[in-house]
Amino acid sequence: MSDTIEAPVVDQQFLKTLVSLIRAEDTYGAWEGKSDDVLLRPFVLTKEERRLIPIIGDPDPDTITRVEQFYKAIGLTIEKRTRLMATPIMKMSHEGFGRMVLLTGRLVVLSKHIRDVHRFGFPSVEAVSQDGAKLVDEALALIEKHRDVAEL
Amino acid sequence: MSDTIEAPVVDQQFLKTLVSLIRAEDTYGAWEGKSDDVLLRPFVLTKEERRLIPIIGDPDPDTITRVEQFYKAIGLTIEKRTRLMATPIMKMSHEGFGRMVLLTGRLVVLSKHIRDVHRFGFPSVEAVSQDGAKLVDEALALIEKHRDVAEL
Repeated sequence: MSDTIEAPVVDQQFLKTLVSLIRAEDTYGAWEGKSDDVLLRPFVLTKEERRLIPIIGDPDPDTITRVEQFYKAIGLTIEKRTRLMATPIMKMSHEGFGRMVLLTGRLVVLSKHIRDVHRFGFPSVEAVSQDGAKLVDEALALIEKHRDVAEL
Repeated sequence: MSDTIEAPVVDQQFLKTLVSLIRAEDTYGAWEGKSDDVLLRPFVLTKEERRLIPIIGDPDPDTITRVEQFYKAIGLTIEKRTRLMATPIMKMSHEGFGRMVLLTGRLVVLSKHIRDVHRFGFPSVEAVSQDGAKLVDEALALIEKHRDVAEL
């Protein structure tokens, strides 16, 4: 797809980091033969799939893991590009809403309120990549602007 | 005690805020007749009491509540003095260590690593007040210095 070829460096770097995080948890080598697209498939939710997921009850632990992987990958990409650590802290209620922040020094480089975590997902793999890269870019701009605070 | 009379404004303000937070949870009026010192007593742990608390197993939920009240009181005191909100986020493992941060805008105004939360406590009520006020002062100094980030 021309999309993939034209995708900016950050997109590629973010997606690669996310895939490597997923593969890092593959202790038994079960996913070795699987392509990146197959591994990223659980991050994709079509509109119909979304609608079928109830938002009552505790969110699926696998979904929480994916939320954590997504933001951890953002943190690691920030780290690769700035050499400054970006630590995620998530506060999540049992009802599926909460807040995710990424902290670099004394700077909050990312702050997201999360709702309906039960339905966490993206319309396509390209969207995973683009949304992730967008958040990385915003964080990088903030670090650029307030580097003194990020280095505290 | 001359300590109390000479205590700076922030000390008094912090302790008052903490007490009001504790009283706010007194839904049935059971603590109405109790003095502030009595309410603050659970925050005080003597060396001997400390030693008697095992640090294995889940921390006592009442202890976690006190940790949250202590840092919430810091956040509220910051808010009273700067008119900027300071939101606490705590990440705590079952083993009793974790991290507490207070965020004001995009500024991390307080960042504490917490260990052995099972044994959270202070040698005296004065120490509760002084330690709290010290953390408030540090946060205020940081906000003063990076007000643009705190207001983001």
